[in-house]
Amino acid sequence: MSFTENDIALANALADAAGQAIRPFFRARFEIETKDDSSPVTQADRAAEAAMRRLIEAERPRDGIIGEEYGEKPGTSGRTWVLDPIDGTRSFIAGRPIFGTLIALLGEGWPMIGVIDQPIGRERWLGAVGRKTLFNGDPVTTRACRALDTAILATTGPQFFSPHSAEHFSMLARQCGDTLFGGDCYNYGLVASGHVDLVVESGLKLHDFAALVPVVEGAGGRMCDWNGDPLGEQSRGDVIAAGDPARIDDIIEGLACAH
Amino acid sequence: MSFTENDIALANALADAAGQAIRPFFRARFEIETKDDSSPVTQADRAAEAAMRRLIEAERPRDGIIGEEYGEKPGTSGRTWVLDPIDGTRSFIAGRPIFGTLIALLGEGWPMIGVIDQPIGRERWLGAVGRKTLFNGDPVTTRACRALDTAILATTGPQFFSPHSAEHFSMLARQCGDTLFGGDCYNYGLVASGHVDLVVESGLKLHDFAALVPVVEGAGGRMCDWNGDPLGEQSRGDVIAAGDPARIDDIIEGLACAH
Repeated sequence: MSFTENDIALANALADAAGQAIRPFFRARFEIETKDDSSPVTQADRAAEAAMRRLIEAERPRDGIIGEEYGEKPGTSGRTWVLDPIDGTRSFIAGRPIFGTLIALLGEGWPMIGVIDQPIGRERWLGAVGRKTLFNGDPVTTRACRALDTAILATTGPQFFSPHSAEHFSMLARQCGDTLFGGDCYNYGLVASGHVDLVVESGLKLHDFAALVPVVEGAGGRMCDWNGDPLGEQSRGDVIAAGDPARIDDIIEGLACAH
Repeated sequence: MSFTENDIALANALADAAGQAIRPFFRARFEIETKDDSSPVTQADRAAEAAMRRLIEAERPRDGIIGEEYGEKPGTSGRTWVLDPIDGTRSFIAGRPIFGTLIALLGEGWPMIGVIDQPIGRERWLGAVGRKTLFNGDPVTTRACRALDTAILATTGPQFFSPHSAEHFSMLARQCGDTLFGGDCYNYGLVASGHVDLVVESGLKLHDFAALVPVVEGAGGRMCDWNGDPLGEQSRGDVIAAGDPARIDDIIEGLACAH
């Protein structure tokens, strides 16, 4: 299963459409609803996903779609577009320009193309298997990290860990140089660009992490779950992103060392 | 003790100079040093403060200066410029455009003018006693907050509280609608603009909070310490910023309710 230049062009077009739908709602008045899982959902979220689905249905009628807002549409091509119109809804609602639109193309359940798009700052990371990750069109590379004690670790917030995961995360954080909170998908873009060394999160859904994998790995980093296994459709959502793949073992060891 | 239009113009000029000094270092390679208090200090920090001090020394030779990087220069005018060239150094280092330059003018120890400037997104909040706070030149207003259980609470990170303060903060956070981490001074700008309801932090220094007071209060909010007392040169640095002053009592009660 592979992808074409047209798929990359479509991924870019989807991000453009989402950005156009989102920008009018940023820092504007809008209704905050509450879903079953208590995450805030905005009109912007729905407008952006609807815009992306329209494009996919027109251009790739046989592809499946999994979207955070409008659910799953099975396909017949073995390819699935995974959409999270606004990852970091809390940041969006609070007026912080560090949320993002996530777009992934899966082939047989594995991410082949990924986009992290920040529509306010107009920042876009585009990753694709076997290619160099691009940031606004220019190739980016993760940075080397000689040891965890100088590493910048990022995670969205302590409240997103279960008590058990939080204990493991804290053990790791104590071994790292610094821990930065907030950021959602934006943190993974910053890993790809070599400004942050690692991100560790728990409980992510497929639409939260699928797009991140090609972005981080195409920049030279590595993503896996807390056991070191690759991330795909069946993953549980305990996620590690390391800019320097040489640190993966240290990170897994750091997380597991709660006694 | 009061201020003039020229003082406001100088505050804007200082923010311009700091931004010019900072932008070339954002997401560039730079040396990270470690100060005694372990906070990261960058070349950008120093270049920005030096640029601001040069301007103040040329324009207001009798005014005092308190800067995070280059310390205190006593004045003879009863007025003191308080400078934090990069508040949110961690965000800056990680490549997040939500740090800020803080500039305050104190009269007899009390903040009269305050600037929060984000030089990457080119966002500037300017507050002055008795005037409407401006965001990029346009007046902004905090939003009403009917009750804490719908409020967005922001704070930079759990690690900045002492164990004792953390307990009080957690009690408050449980009563709020949502808690957003990260953000430093940027959170206070978002309170002024009506996107965030409150910020609660602990252990801030004068250069961290002096500029915030005129910004938040000029937009209709209120700032005080955890006892409800006003923030000035002698404050301990346990800070509350509320967009809706009607919630101050609830916040103080929420913080104090640890048994």
